[in-house]
Amino acid sequence: MVDVRVGIIGLGSVGQGVVKILSDNISLIQKKTNAKISIIGVSGKNKNKQREVQINRYQWFDNPISLAVNVDADIIVELIGGEDGIALQVVESALKAGKNVITANKALIAKSGNYLLDLAEKNGAKLLFEAAIAGSIPIVKTLKESVASNTISAIYGILNGTCNYILTSMEKEGMSFDDALKRAQELGFAEADPTFDIEGYDAAHKLSILSSMCFGQKIDFDHVKIQGIKAIELDDIRAASDYGYTIRLLGIAKKNKDGHISQVVRPSLLSKESDLAGIEWEKNAVTIRGNYFKELLISGPGAGRYPTASAIMGDIFDIINNTNYPPLGTPLKALSKSSNEMNIETSRFYLRLLLPDISGTMASITNAMAKNGISIDDITQRISKKMKDKNLVPITIITSTTDFTSINKAVEDINKNNYSPTTPNIITIES
Amino acid sequence: MVDVRVGIIGLGSVGQGVVKILSDNISLIQKKTNAKISIIGVSGKNKNKQREVQINRYQWFDNPISLAVNVDADIIVELIGGEDGIALQVVESALKAGKNVITANKALIAKSGNYLLDLAEKNGAKLLFEAAIAGSIPIVKTLKESVASNTISAIYGILNGTCNYILTSMEKEGMSFDDALKRAQELGFAEADPTFDIEGYDAAHKLSILSSMCFGQKIDFDHVKIQGIKAIELDDIRAASDYGYTIRLLGIAKKNKDGHISQVVRPSLLSKESDLAGIEWEKNAVTIRGNYFKELLISGPGAGRYPTASAIMGDIFDIINNTNYPPLGTPLKALSKSSNEMNIETSRFYLRLLLPDISGTMASITNAMAKNGISIDDITQRISKKMKDKNLVPITIITSTTDFTSINKAVEDINKNNYSPTTPNIITIES
Repeated sequence: MVDVRVGIIGLGSVGQGVVKILSDNISLIQKKTNAKISIIGVSGKNKNKQREVQINRYQWFDNPISLAVNVDADIIVELIGGEDGIALQVVESALKAGKNVITANKALIAKSGNYLLDLAEKNGAKLLFEAAIAGSIPIVKTLKESVASNTISAIYGILNGTCNYILTSMEKEGMSFDDALKRAQELGFAEADPTFDIEGYDAAHKLSILSSMCFGQKIDFDHVKIQGIKAIELDDIRAASDYGYTIRLLGIAKKNKDGHISQVVRPSLLSKESDLAGIEWEKNAVTIRGNYFKELLISGPGAGRYPTASAIMGDIFDIINNTNYPPLGTPLKALSKSSNEMNIETSRFYLRLLLPDISGTMASITNAMAKNGISIDDITQRISKKMKDKNLVPITIITSTTDFTSINKAVEDINKNNYSPTTPNIITIES
Repeated sequence: MVDVRVGIIGLGSVGQGVVKILSDNISLIQKKTNAKISIIGVSGKNKNKQREVQINRYQWFDNPISLAVNVDADIIVELIGGEDGIALQVVESALKAGKNVITANKALIAKSGNYLLDLAEKNGAKLLFEAAIAGSIPIVKTLKESVASNTISAIYGILNGTCNYILTSMEKEGMSFDDALKRAQELGFAEADPTFDIEGYDAAHKLSILSSMCFGQKIDFDHVKIQGIKAIELDDIRAASDYGYTIRLLGIAKKNKDGHISQVVRPSLLSKESDLAGIEWEKNAVTIRGNYFKELLISGPGAGRYPTASAIMGDIFDIINNTNYPPLGTPLKALSKSSNEMNIETSRFYLRLLLPDISGTMASITNAMAKNGISIDDITQRISKKMKDKNLVPITIITSTTDFTSINKAVEDINKNNYSPTTPNIITIES
């Protein structure tokens, strides 16, 4: 029987979930691993806060760093969150003390993962982060272990439950963006300050880690091109639906023909028939493509107390079983420098413009498109009573394959000749 | 640098795939694991058979057992297939010689897994079988590692690509069962003798292994209740579709209220909206439910040269990395005896009967149902010119929740009063 002593730092929803799972499953863990797990200490913002799990029986640390470096701890679970500040200090000091660290902190790994993983290796410690990406979906383990022999060509993920919940609410219940966000907040699927989620940063953090794992490069968050969902209106959802598409916020990393990697988070029009279009509400999903396994999809809860705590537990089992895979799949010293680029992605695009309801408007659009070498697959003038009163018409366009630069130039040309009261909404169509 | 020496026994499609991946990825494997892999020998039915990969440069063994126990081998990959005979002898002798064994042989593990895993443990060897279940879908690793802290309540799988291909062909293209099977054979998705697949045995083999992993019991193939898809006719697919359902062959293992485990392979009516209904053609998928992670779905190619070889490679990586999980998730000595039972499953059912086109037929059905305590949710008399000529009418029924025994009694009662030219088709509706 091996003793495994765990310190838990951060006692929010997930932290409490880990305490609960550890304390409820002592005999299950013993049976499966021959290890006796004990919680040797906990630390949180406020000792006396009302919590759903009993923490009185564990030693309380006012100073999380004292727990992080505590001589009795084998594993430190960091659940504070945030890309720097106390979370960074906790992980740093635990690793320097040679402790194994498990975290659900995607921002921290995205921003400081290269440094922290190196620090872990130098100190003979492990730093694991399955819970940081897509909750209970075992994508980290699948990439670094199950498909290790493959060359990965692309990864597509619905990596943010808040955004997916909002987009699904708009699509299924005809809610406005603001109403959908409000409901998501009421139900606990969105934070009080949702900026991080709806502007795409959270998905981008996760994507940068996945991209590193897929392509054997250092984590490179700075080269993720990010577009959030704030600009999506119900009219876009409806128009997309008329064309046979669903809108999802996707994180995409892929190897381009020139060998460079592109990482992008953006709303995308997906065929209603596609697997990822079927991922609804707060669910997450990841699709990977590789030369031998072809294509795998994993879907499940991407957040939440117990799904995330379950992933933390998976990492604890890995440490108990002394699993020896490099944390990013490729050993740190063999990771190549990032060759990421903000590439000029070619694809079909969806555009929605609001233009004056006067003769010649359509002609000005088609001329601007032609001038910039863009073929139009569909152009539809839509009916909107609200806009009619303002003497404006919404017009949606589906282009054939082109690039963002050309689209932007065409939109500039259109706006030269027309008063457009809003920035046009331009959304990539994923093929 | 560690030397890892592999012997490959069985050079069919998957065996050739493993040879190809190993020989094409020496530097990738070296980079990721610091191991130098070499193929120290191969063995197959016929040395001189035309193959898609070069095997001349490897030592040939006429006698597979000589390779299995070869002093130079660290890992034996068994890809002969079959639940006994030479495959069993190869695995047995390799394990007795202390060699690690990797196999894609579901029949062997389903029938002799308890014995062979015990033999492996006694000889300090590993026996891994990710490739035996659902091709490249990493369900074995996910169950034994990622969700190890959970109590699993149920697993649902589309585990046989042949059956799924046939059912999808019938559904999407209106093909008869026989035509769909013929096409599947022509395209390599079905064997020349498809009995094993279409009668549900292959799915049952896989299910019995998954069930053991989910519920911590010994593998118990003998208690899988098996119903294949041979009796499914195009008329069933169409009627199911009218009711909003798709027919899929499911493997289901779940813990019942009384704590017993039921294992069943059977065609099932699934709501068209459900995840598994969306799994089409030769694809496989597995859904698991657990107390903490809630629900995960993994889908992908369930067979084929490279997807299966990719899973074999995952097991090779596990051996190189000295991954130490018990092969069924729970250590052998802690597995409980099977408490499987052929339980009386309650559910809604779909029935299709062919009955004489005379007055009183409907009344005789509704009376028989009522007599056996079954409520009818829908009863539809269908139009069939072919049957009309024979003075017969097809009638489909959707019952409310009941059990198989009651249904069978009701059908007996119906048949007492009517001449029914075919056994009625009774298909469970999965809720």
